Amino acid sequence: MTATAPSPESILQTGFAFLASKTLLSAVEMEVFTELAGRPEDLETLTGRLGLHPRSARDFLDALVALGFLERHDGKYANTPSTDLFLDKHKPSYIGGILEMVNARSYGHWNHLTTALRTGQQQNEVAHGDPEVFSALYADPARLRTFLRAMTGVSRGANLAIAAKFPWAEYKTVADCGPAQGDLLTQVCLKNPHLTGLGFDLPEVAPIFEEYIQANGLANRVRFQPGNFFRDPLPHAEVIMMGHILHDWNLEEKRQLIRKAYEALPAGGAFLAYDALIDDDRSKNAFGLMMSLHMLIETPGGFDYTGADCVGWMKDAGFRKTRVEHLVGPDSMVVGIK
Amino acid sequence: MTATAPSPESILQTGFAFLASKTLLSAVEMEVFTELAGRPEDLETLTGRLGLHPRSARDFLDALVALGFLERHDGKYANTPSTDLFLDKHKPSYIGGILEMVNARSYGHWNHLTTALRTGQQQNEVAHGDPEVFSALYADPARLRTFLRAMTGVSRGANLAIAAKFPWAEYKTVADCGPAQGDLLTQVCLKNPHLTGLGFDLPEVAPIFEEYIQANGLANRVRFQPGNFFRDPLPHAEVIMMGHILHDWNLEEKRQLIRKAYEALPAGGAFLAYDALIDDDRSKNAFGLMMSLHMLIETPGGFDYTGADCVGWMKDAGFRKTRVEHLVGPDSMVVGIK
Repeated sequence: MTATAPSPESILQTGFAFLASKTLLSAVEMEVFTELAGRPEDLETLTGRLGLHPRSARDFLDALVALGFLERHDGKYANTPSTDLFLDKHKPSYIGGILEMVNARSYGHWNHLTTALRTGQQQNEVAHGDPEVFSALYADPARLRTFLRAMTGVSRGANLAIAAKFPWAEYKTVADCGPAQGDLLTQVCLKNPHLTGLGFDLPEVAPIFEEYIQANGLANRVRFQPGNFFRDPLPHAEVIMMGHILHDWNLEEKRQLIRKAYEALPAGGAFLAYDALIDDDRSKNAFGLMMSLHMLIETPGGFDYTGADCVGWMKDAGFRKTRVEHLVGPDSMVVGIK
Repeated sequence: MTATAPSPESILQTGFAFLASKTLLSAVEMEVFTELAGRPEDLETLTGRLGLHPRSARDFLDALVALGFLERHDGKYANTPSTDLFLDKHKPSYIGGILEMVNARSYGHWNHLTTALRTGQQQNEVAHGDPEVFSALYADPARLRTFLRAMTGVSRGANLAIAAKFPWAEYKTVADCGPAQGDLLTQVCLKNPHLTGLGFDLPEVAPIFEEYIQANGLANRVRFQPGNFFRDPLPHAEVIMMGHILHDWNLEEKRQLIRKAYEALPAGGAFLAYDALIDDDRSKNAFGLMMSLHMLIETPGGFDYTGADCVGWMKDAGFRKTRVEHLVGPDSMVVGIK
């Protein structure tokens, strides 16, 4: 992103990039793409249906056109192929849950980034309070469902990559610890019919997990086991996975989870952790580094990490072989073999 | 920005683009680039000097490296050529004022975009209150100085383009209505030594304007005239300019300002208005369209507009010739000849 001659362009572009973010986030919140799924509509109809005020309805919709999220032909607005597939709430491919959550929570929390950077303390609604970062979330079924659905949206690409590229033929059982709706298990088991899977999480997750597994026709191969991955032993399986889990926790908690995965695995079993891994030089994966700032804002001690960091923790826990593989976008996985 | 095959990439990238915005905005707020001007520093020194907490100091600085705003060599962080030139507070080329303002105000106001879209009402601290949108701002000298300096930062590129490409040889006098610090007059008069200029704005602007003009060695050719461009006639000059002014106002106010410019000009005189003009098809200049949403959030009736819109208003006001010319980035100017 550095220009060869000094130019203010990239500075101003990045400084104002929140405008495009919030325009898209408000469009997801107002269900613009769900309204337009499969049926183009004109300005007047959309203004009424979406409850837009006439003052800026046209600017808003045209901004979505200029940003590439809508098309406009003969005065009618329509979804693009991407927004129709990924931002229509009624399609299983919907990934807007993460954007709903970001819109309702993270965008506002990030307004306190400077305070977080100065104090090292989280800046969300449980700031300075509950050390059980997820307990408030898990106590509210509607918020929990939104959160777990959001996690599916942000993880789908990585889940598909893991389903395709991990050597599943060598294993028969797989457990996902902190599975959210169960999309990783779903993609892995749909692609590998010889596997049986298990989702391990707090009991509040059970109904949401089971509904998702059932909807994907996997109830006969994938089941749920309630538990707390700090207080209880992890379930036994040949492969234990944690996707977007380790970064939530501080260093001692990370090491504890890795040790517990090691203990639960048979010899030759694999532990697979994935996150938006920071590159080892800590100079390229901006998203991974900013996810770590996101953990600063959202958790008491969480942080993102490099592949080399994770390999070190795995070796300390006893894993005899490790490897780091890129998945998709900012996500990479670290695999440890016991 | 639309991908050829449906992909969630651009959706997720834009949805999370506020992370990079806020990381840069906090860096400007914390004066990272001013601290590093001309002298690379290591993590420990920077953490202390900037008042960063150790938990995320390294993530923050490395994120700025990955985003292209810092470099890191042998463990020492340094500005890039661009951030050294444009984000060091002690250099006259500093454009961070606009980012300071965006960080302190706009980022938070934009969290209420959905409400603004539903109600058509501004969402800043004077929401639903004072119809004199700028009076609170002008009443506070420190905030006014920040605002006017911010305007210089965001206008510099366009100002240089106007100084270079407008046919100044045909004119001898120029007035800028709403000149902020006076950077447009400064660039125009520095490049064209035969011109004399006049800045016209509320009296509160005088000391800030005069200081800037003096610092640029133009006190003998550029003076200030206090006035209110709605209540008073505009000053007489062969060229009357308004940069980032028309978009602040509603349609009737825009037309009024254009009429008053017409009245103040001699036959053959030129009115020059520039803004982040929306393209006539309203499908390409996303920044211009989002600036219009910004006016929704910040003003009671302001909106951005296309070149064709402005040409229409100018013709209605009596201008006999008009033209639209691109300047730089999202900015274009509309010129009307009386």
